[in-house]
Amino acid sequence: MEEKMIKVQFPDGVKKEFLRGTTVESIAGAISSSLRKNAVAGKVNEILVDLNYRIEENANLSIITTDSEEGMRVLRESTAQVLAQAVKRLYNEVKLGDGQVNENGFYYDFQLEQSLSPVDLAAIEKEMEKIISENLEIKRLQVSFEAAEKRLSEKNERFKLEALQDLSKNEKITLYQQGELLDLGRGPLLPSTGRIKAYKLLKVSGAYWKGEKQNEVMQRIYGVGFKKKQDLDDYQSIQNEAAKRDHRKLGKQLELFMFSDEAAGMPFYLPNGQIIRNELEDFSRELQIDAQYEEVRTPYMMNQQLWENSGHWDHYHENMYFSDVDDTKFALKPMNCPGHMLIFKNKPHSYRDLPIRLSEFGQVHRHEFSGALNGMTRVRTFCQDDAHIYVREDQIESEIKGIFRLIDKVYSTFGFEYSVELSTRPEDSLGNDRFWEESETALKNVLAKLDIEYRLNEGDGAFYGPKIDFHIQDALKRSHQCATIQLDFQMPEKFDLTYINENNEKVRPIVIHRAIYGSIDRFFGILIEHFAGVFPVWLAPLQVLLIPVAQAHLEYCLKIQSELKKLGVRVKVDSRDEKLGYKIREAQMQKVPYAAVIGDKEINEETFNVRKYGSRKSDNIPIEGFKVLIASQISKRSRN
Amino acid sequence: MEEKMIKVQFPDGVKKEFLRGTTVESIAGAISSSLRKNAVAGKVNEILVDLNYRIEENANLSIITTDSEEGMRVLRESTAQVLAQAVKRLYNEVKLGDGQVNENGFYYDFQLEQSLSPVDLAAIEKEMEKIISENLEIKRLQVSFEAAEKRLSEKNERFKLEALQDLSKNEKITLYQQGELLDLGRGPLLPSTGRIKAYKLLKVSGAYWKGEKQNEVMQRIYGVGFKKKQDLDDYQSIQNEAAKRDHRKLGKQLELFMFSDEAAGMPFYLPNGQIIRNELEDFSRELQIDAQYEEVRTPYMMNQQLWENSGHWDHYHENMYFSDVDDTKFALKPMNCPGHMLIFKNKPHSYRDLPIRLSEFGQVHRHEFSGALNGMTRVRTFCQDDAHIYVREDQIESEIKGIFRLIDKVYSTFGFEYSVELSTRPEDSLGNDRFWEESETALKNVLAKLDIEYRLNEGDGAFYGPKIDFHIQDALKRSHQCATIQLDFQMPEKFDLTYINENNEKVRPIVIHRAIYGSIDRFFGILIEHFAGVFPVWLAPLQVLLIPVAQAHLEYCLKIQSELKKLGVRVKVDSRDEKLGYKIREAQMQKVPYAAVIGDKEINEETFNVRKYGSRKSDNIPIEGFKVLIASQISKRSRN
Repeated sequence: MEEKMIKVQFPDGVKKEFLRGTTVESIAGAISSSLRKNAVAGKVNEILVDLNYRIEENANLSIITTDSEEGMRVLRESTAQVLAQAVKRLYNEVKLGDGQVNENGFYYDFQLEQSLSPVDLAAIEKEMEKIISENLEIKRLQVSFEAAEKRLSEKNERFKLEALQDLSKNEKITLYQQGELLDLGRGPLLPSTGRIKAYKLLKVSGAYWKGEKQNEVMQRIYGVGFKKKQDLDDYQSIQNEAAKRDHRKLGKQLELFMFSDEAAGMPFYLPNGQIIRNELEDFSRELQIDAQYEEVRTPYMMNQQLWENSGHWDHYHENMYFSDVDDTKFALKPMNCPGHMLIFKNKPHSYRDLPIRLSEFGQVHRHEFSGALNGMTRVRTFCQDDAHIYVREDQIESEIKGIFRLIDKVYSTFGFEYSVELSTRPEDSLGNDRFWEESETALKNVLAKLDIEYRLNEGDGAFYGPKIDFHIQDALKRSHQCATIQLDFQMPEKFDLTYINENNEKVRPIVIHRAIYGSIDRFFGILIEHFAGVFPVWLAPLQVLLIPVAQAHLEYCLKIQSELKKLGVRVKVDSRDEKLGYKIREAQMQKVPYAAVIGDKEINEETFNVRKYGSRKSDNIPIEGFKVLIASQISKRSRN
Repeated sequence: MEEKMIKVQFPDGVKKEFLRGTTVESIAGAISSSLRKNAVAGKVNEILVDLNYRIEENANLSIITTDSEEGMRVLRESTAQVLAQAVKRLYNEVKLGDGQVNENGFYYDFQLEQSLSPVDLAAIEKEMEKIISENLEIKRLQVSFEAAEKRLSEKNERFKLEALQDLSKNEKITLYQQGELLDLGRGPLLPSTGRIKAYKLLKVSGAYWKGEKQNEVMQRIYGVGFKKKQDLDDYQSIQNEAAKRDHRKLGKQLELFMFSDEAAGMPFYLPNGQIIRNELEDFSRELQIDAQYEEVRTPYMMNQQLWENSGHWDHYHENMYFSDVDDTKFALKPMNCPGHMLIFKNKPHSYRDLPIRLSEFGQVHRHEFSGALNGMTRVRTFCQDDAHIYVREDQIESEIKGIFRLIDKVYSTFGFEYSVELSTRPEDSLGNDRFWEESETALKNVLAKLDIEYRLNEGDGAFYGPKIDFHIQDALKRSHQCATIQLDFQMPEKFDLTYINENNEKVRPIVIHRAIYGSIDRFFGILIEHFAGVFPVWLAPLQVLLIPVAQAHLEYCLKIQSELKKLGVRVKVDSRDEKLGYKIREAQMQKVPYAAVIGDKEINEETFNVRKYGSRKSDNIPIEGFKVLIASQISKRSRN
């Protein structure tokens, strides 16, 4: 009896005995029937396996469900395979490429003469539905390299055969058999197609085989997959909401910005957008003055020697634009750091002068491929709310604390939640091991002392030092990396920066790079979507629209306009010869925070008939009260 | 008797009879002895002649004195010839180049092996003095080309011979004989060297013969010349004052800006300078919002096609910098116009929408030779307070009126007087004759209607249209061209701009280009010299320095500091462990408008012991009164 039983230990430490050769699925079922229902795979001694994997030895086992990211991957990879089967059924001549899982779903590449259209996608979805209702078993096969080669040749799948060549000839190859479909895969996958509940095909686009330009162009079908219908519905409604909020669409509708073929990826700010941009700069400037930053302004391009000295020439060359000045190569600045180093170096400093906080609204240029450009969120030139802080070693902690305070103030003003990431040494980096270890340790210590929770992001630091990144969460719970704090022991070395310490010795300062908006342009794009174009009063390009009921009320409107202007309110009078309702609707279209109708009643009572944007009814409020209200909303930068 | 007399008419209309062959000088003497003394030349029938010119026919005659610009030219040209003679006497081997008159004096080019030093200049001045005391006659000779050639060959003056070749072989050549010196010249010159009273040699520098790079390098000696000693003294004291005010020197001393070899001609704004720059921008923005301008922001570079379309590629290429974006040539913008044209074109416009006033603080790049660079006044990149106004034909006049109002407001704030110039079609220009005639006439009409006095500046317009330039006069009475208003019928054509008129037809708008500061960077340089670094309170980087008498008074100072900060005052406390006198002196060095010492007395009486910059004594004034004073000076942008 003894040798027929094995011991299985679960993540909670509990050990149980099972018959040797029991499947993962049966063990899940032995624990609870609901666990069996939700299970999609197992993890045996840290290795992911199919549900019908038989456990032959004592082992540690976790049951993987769709509650985990790993479980969702299994679900989505299985759905991709169903997609492959459906396409194969509908298009006999198709050759299968490869499938992958991505953030909310999956994609699969196909070679097919005919271009697939949205109508075709609907037909493919229908075929997938059929395959799911057939509840086909998804069988894992472990075969020799030669056997795999033979079977894929029989199926005439030349891309699969090519992919096979990348695998080791000496190990077993995993194939999955699903009805008539044979696919090469790592797995694990679901035990049968009937387990798939909620998916949707999104679009088809072009892709190179293996992602390499010289290879054949494939058609890539994208889809999303969730564990239940409700999740899919939620996803779709967020997508619809996001489409409505799309900053490119709202940017056009609200006349905030434009782009032109004459300068792809380089934004033009229209008057409405420029108002918001100026408000964002003023807000940042105000906070920075309070926090004892000193604003500077440095050239837009500098010569090759400078960029070689800073390391950008070697480590950032591909992202830079160049120009010639007389016979010298210049580069447009992709970062503001070197300019600020020259300013620090311009005069001697004592330890008593530190920290020195140089800030700049610095316009940088960085190359992006035209295909990567996307509205304001991916551009070729943008303005950073940049700063470089020169500190002594004993000031790092308090200074980073100060930056955290600033960041919190900015983000809370816009109503952003945020999380923190620590990014460490990247592959292409400047400086030796000791430097990196020291500066990474310094940042970790500061985060620990500040008791900040953070995620570790290995290898994603700047080429000159590790960094703390801030990710804000917008109204649709999407995450955007914006603020950054970077510790830098390299630039002071390269630019030979020094200050005189208490003992009259020359010492290197440490530089902290930081940005809060990050790119003002990108932040603006995020704000547009976050607020769905309904900006808080202080940001709104037009804050109040006054609408006279008739010509007779125009003069009074102009009087009120001038009073509001004196308070710094952006206000217009709509004196056009149009219907009242039309004017009110237009104010709503333009998302003006306050539209006020003024007629006899309002003039006699010294009131405003104000409709706040988004509310269905208007209120009659005293003009003086309204003035106090709006002045306070603007000066406090309230979120309405 | 009759035929021996001729009739001479003077500018005031008076006619007099003289003996045929009377010299200009004698006629001047016949009018008054003082006129004879001040006379330097005559103008006979609008042609300038020497004083010893004999009038043989009835003629119109003006006596030219050093009270006129023409008279000063005669004086300075004669002084240049004395310089040539002095150099020739001291350096036997010297070859004479050419002499010229400039704003306050003259220069003369020499070819000479030995480099001339300031010590040499003193010796040359001494020799000039001698020549003047010799009172040599300056004799005009009219000879044939061949005779001139022969005489200059005898003197072995190869540059003079070369210059002679540029003259007509068929006309009489003018030579001047002055003692042993023979010079080629147009004249007129003074009758004798003894008439020269006040001159000074300034410096020597290199110059190419005839100003052409491939030619020989000459040594150019510069000098100034005036009609009397007092004028020379005045000139020299203004020069000394200008040197003290030199913005490059003050820029360094007051830490306003810096330059670096890594980006020659591209300013770095240091914190103090950036504060002033922001104030200048804010002031302009405030006025522009009042005047219903709409601010925009356009890309820093755009592609070749755009610049070809705008005409800059053909007419401005040499001043531009270029870059490559993927495979397309881009140019950094030298002007903001094309970007603004694209914005106008971005949506349809009705006649009711005009005028549309687009403004931008636009950073442009324009190439300058490295030798031409000069502090902030000649740079390779600068920010324009630029605007383009799209108008209907019937709006030109009122719009230009509005711009005049704005300009007046800006310049009077800084205490600048200004004059107006109209510049017409340049040689290299866009567009046909009709366009130019129309737009020049339009500007002339507007100036006439506005009753503005102006100077005509032929051929100095922009390549796309004529312009009105504004010249401000600084505290040293030096003139600087800053504001400009340009009328443009071309760009709307090239960019196919239209609006819909009352009859529902597409019509071209007219564009008015305008800038008020012109280049903010250059204007800043001018301001530094105008105010000698003593900025009005609203511009001063630091407005108030609080100096505690002892450590015990520090806390109170910090309290006052925070109260002043709330009023928007830039205020610091000097809490360093230094002597009171030292701190006060340092505040004076930094030209801080108000330095206030606070001790027991001040705390008890709630007063300030304030020393205003430049005054020798300090005043005790109530703190509350000081707050009101400084807040008003700042908000009104008073000139102290």
